[in-house]
Amino acid sequence: MIDVRNPEDGFAALRARIDAIGTPVGGDRGAPGAPLTVGEWALLIEDIVENPDDSTGGIYNVATAAEDDREYDAIFVGGGASGRFGAAYLRARGGRQLIIDAWPFLGGSCPHQACVPHHLFSECARELDLARHMQGRLWFPAFDESKASILEIIDLFKQGRSLPHAVMNWQSKEQLDLEYILNARARVIDEHTVEVEGRQYRANNLVLGTGASTLYPDIPGIGQPGVFDYASLIEDLDYEPTSCVIIGGSKVALEYGSFFQATGCTTTILTRSPLMRTASMHHIDEDMRAYVIDMMVDRGITIIEGAEPLEVLVDGRAAGVRYRTAAGETVDLATDFVFVGTGERPDLKLYDALGLDIDERGFIRADSTMRTSTPSVYATGDILGSPMEMFKARKCGMTAARNIMGERYEYDYSEYPDFLHTTYEVTWCGLTEAEARHRYPNVIKLQMPPDGSDPESFPLPAAEGSMLYAFTRPILSGWFKLVIDADSRRILGAHHVGFGAKDAFQYIDYLIRRPEGWTIDDMAELSELFLNPEHFIQLSRLRAGKQQLVNL
Amino acid sequence: MIDVRNPEDGFAALRARIDAIGTPVGGDRGAPGAPLTVGEWALLIEDIVENPDDSTGGIYNVATAAEDDREYDAIFVGGGASGRFGAAYLRARGGRQLIIDAWPFLGGSCPHQACVPHHLFSECARELDLARHMQGRLWFPAFDESKASILEIIDLFKQGRSLPHAVMNWQSKEQLDLEYILNARARVIDEHTVEVEGRQYRANNLVLGTGASTLYPDIPGIGQPGVFDYASLIEDLDYEPTSCVIIGGSKVALEYGSFFQATGCTTTILTRSPLMRTASMHHIDEDMRAYVIDMMVDRGITIIEGAEPLEVLVDGRAAGVRYRTAAGETVDLATDFVFVGTGERPDLKLYDALGLDIDERGFIRADSTMRTSTPSVYATGDILGSPMEMFKARKCGMTAARNIMGERYEYDYSEYPDFLHTTYEVTWCGLTEAEARHRYPNVIKLQMPPDGSDPESFPLPAAEGSMLYAFTRPILSGWFKLVIDADSRRILGAHHVGFGAKDAFQYIDYLIRRPEGWTIDDMAELSELFLNPEHFIQLSRLRAGKQQLVNL
Repeated sequence: MIDVRNPEDGFAALRARIDAIGTPVGGDRGAPGAPLTVGEWALLIEDIVENPDDSTGGIYNVATAAEDDREYDAIFVGGGASGRFGAAYLRARGGRQLIIDAWPFLGGSCPHQACVPHHLFSECARELDLARHMQGRLWFPAFDESKASILEIIDLFKQGRSLPHAVMNWQSKEQLDLEYILNARARVIDEHTVEVEGRQYRANNLVLGTGASTLYPDIPGIGQPGVFDYASLIEDLDYEPTSCVIIGGSKVALEYGSFFQATGCTTTILTRSPLMRTASMHHIDEDMRAYVIDMMVDRGITIIEGAEPLEVLVDGRAAGVRYRTAAGETVDLATDFVFVGTGERPDLKLYDALGLDIDERGFIRADSTMRTSTPSVYATGDILGSPMEMFKARKCGMTAARNIMGERYEYDYSEYPDFLHTTYEVTWCGLTEAEARHRYPNVIKLQMPPDGSDPESFPLPAAEGSMLYAFTRPILSGWFKLVIDADSRRILGAHHVGFGAKDAFQYIDYLIRRPEGWTIDDMAELSELFLNPEHFIQLSRLRAGKQQLVNL
Repeated sequence: MIDVRNPEDGFAALRARIDAIGTPVGGDRGAPGAPLTVGEWALLIEDIVENPDDSTGGIYNVATAAEDDREYDAIFVGGGASGRFGAAYLRARGGRQLIIDAWPFLGGSCPHQACVPHHLFSECARELDLARHMQGRLWFPAFDESKASILEIIDLFKQGRSLPHAVMNWQSKEQLDLEYILNARARVIDEHTVEVEGRQYRANNLVLGTGASTLYPDIPGIGQPGVFDYASLIEDLDYEPTSCVIIGGSKVALEYGSFFQATGCTTTILTRSPLMRTASMHHIDEDMRAYVIDMMVDRGITIIEGAEPLEVLVDGRAAGVRYRTAAGETVDLATDFVFVGTGERPDLKLYDALGLDIDERGFIRADSTMRTSTPSVYATGDILGSPMEMFKARKCGMTAARNIMGERYEYDYSEYPDFLHTTYEVTWCGLTEAEARHRYPNVIKLQMPPDGSDPESFPLPAAEGSMLYAFTRPILSGWFKLVIDADSRRILGAHHVGFGAKDAFQYIDYLIRRPEGWTIDDMAELSELFLNPEHFIQLSRLRAGKQQLVNL
């Protein structure tokens, strides 16, 4: 057991232990008696993660009765995105909360095995793509295919991941005033009680946020060495793959497939449904999809649609994948690396005592306040199903917290801005052109490159991140479409492939969903920051003068 | 003379001429009789730009009397950002317009010598910075300092610049239905009349938008070889500089200085005023400024403030700069490359016949409708002074067009979101922390890294574009601050250094200027797209639960 709140007693021993591990990054060492710094937290977390058999026990940041003797308003089971944000909101509202997490850090799988490494990998994919495309031009040397090592990139991530973990432990304690027990497993006794290391904690409510993990297809060979998902990739990969077969067509498949291919690991995606037409990705504009997939194929990725995986062929470790084609043929595809991106499901055994309603796909059912079938139990984040995105997890946590604190607050996550990464950032919100035409009689679009132009000679859209592409091979520089109802002049949807527009879509999504809408005329009034990656503002201004809107 | 509207007559000859030049990029060749394609336009423009003594004469895209016999509502003198956007708006409103420009393309200096190359250079600066920082790690080879050639990068730009030019000619003709005469000098006869190649064109109004160019300080040696501004850099540089002295502290100085340094050309900035404290850059948060300048110095740039340039020392070409220090000493700084970034002024000789009011700094005076002291003459863009930014030029053009077409429309460009590039994207809008504290009694901020943390061990903010920095040296990954009035909960200002947030600031600027404001609670409701470069939404959500807001 480690108590991180007690400067007089255990704290000197804790700091001595951290000192014995090494020197914090940047020499970030705290004064005696002062709270742990980010650098010190990082050392402690790294030590525990690297020595999993160490009998350290729980990390306790729990108020004493003298500090706070109120009953907990909520125990958050799982301190990932939903739990941490829910706890922070509840605490900010004046409530008392306790987070319990099995990992020695807050933030959950995201910074440890999931979204943070994915975003590092996506940045690497983009840089590798540029380095290979530009090789021999300007300062870019010949691209050395032998040097782009998936193992080394993962290793860089693992060497650094304890720092973001540490920020969350530090921020949650020092800035957000949260109580938490980490590195200890929760046992859920009943709808008010959780046991940790033999001690029971009671709360008026439980908030369940323990996430989901990859659902492996039930085919022979799937559990063998050489078969990975996004989490085991980080923890277990111990050889350099030379080729990859991805089973599944989820976002994870597109994102990791683009990364593997960019490293030089030749990648094939086997997918039942056409890519980007799965239920968990909605509002995919057909032209955007075509550009995204064309650009993946342009980079050498093989995409096999209508494929039914039958077996992972094993020779010591994975050596191939047998699949049935759409035409019914059986094909063996040799590879030394199989990656599963078929979607995720939660493990709910922990909650057996609660008798919760579960849906047909294995996710917990909750209402729009995040309340489950058991009134004092809330569920948040990936445990509820798709979209398995950060904003939803965090907002679910906030929603549960507000309701627990007595505010009626509902959250509908059926509509949202969405994105994925290939070597590009792909971002969209609102309606596709086809959806818009189905609902409105007079739909126009602003698009680049425009229909009928030759994309190989049309160097727009371009902006920071795609200038070198634009000046060497215009088609690589991106694509976008703004969908507009010509009658009301309202913008209905926005779709973009490129770099640097993702951040704007958070705000565009809000604007186009306003009850009063957001028109091409509103857009034309904004002040664009040249070279703005989405080009929406200036193209709107070029057309907004017209009473009868037409395409651009 | 080239008539680009006449398929029966001159058009076959025009296409034959283009065919003789070469093959369009991507083989983008039009059918006989069909309008020029983007690729064909590019060939034509390139040919004219590369052969300036060619007696091609004007490129005419002018309606015949049979097509449109109305008098022009406006002649736009200059087809850059303000002229082209103004003309497009006026045309969309049903008016008749004519653009006249001396260059063979629309878009003005921006895509030819100014903003477009600057954004290519800024992307190169960012990539060079990453390549040098990451050298020897992952796939990044040792950085070969001899290979990063300013000349080669400029050459890449010049080889490609006719394509974006071509897009503007093509779009303006085929999509926007604009009339224009290019590659011909306008002579302004009176407030309704402009002469081109001996023919007079009359209009109800003139709109002047011929921009500005670098104002060189009046010191000995300034006109000698080896002294450049952003425009002559593109056209005239014919050797590889090894070091650079920048005279001036404008945005251009920071941006080009960061680029030169990133290529390995050791750069010193000589500036009178402290960097980022000039009148043309407002709302610069002091902490943001400190981070930006620290990061420039971290990259090896020398910044000498309080310096008074006295002379460019010349030995064949520029060999050094003599300046007086703040302490009054005279110092000679050796260099083979002098770059002037002291600001810009318009050349107004063309308008002598109009007798316009000019301000004390040499810019045309116009009211909030862009009308000058001569009622039928409007002025737009850089010719009016700062901010010399794209959005202002374009919106000025739109403003003039709306007023000319009978709509009373005013445009105040005193407040706007702003940005500059070093190796980072630096973006800001609204109030600085100091400005906010001056106006409001209870100001809080959300900031990363937070005050008191060690930025060398604090790996946030990070997002696409700064992940590799965050995982190798956290301080390089960026900085941000959100300034909030704790009483009204309104967001007052936003400040960011990193990558990928620039686009969002266009919308954040709008939101925080709404009459009803934009609160931390509004921000907390948005759906962030992880990893969102500005982190504003989630940090707002972490704090928004609190009734009494405090820093984060």
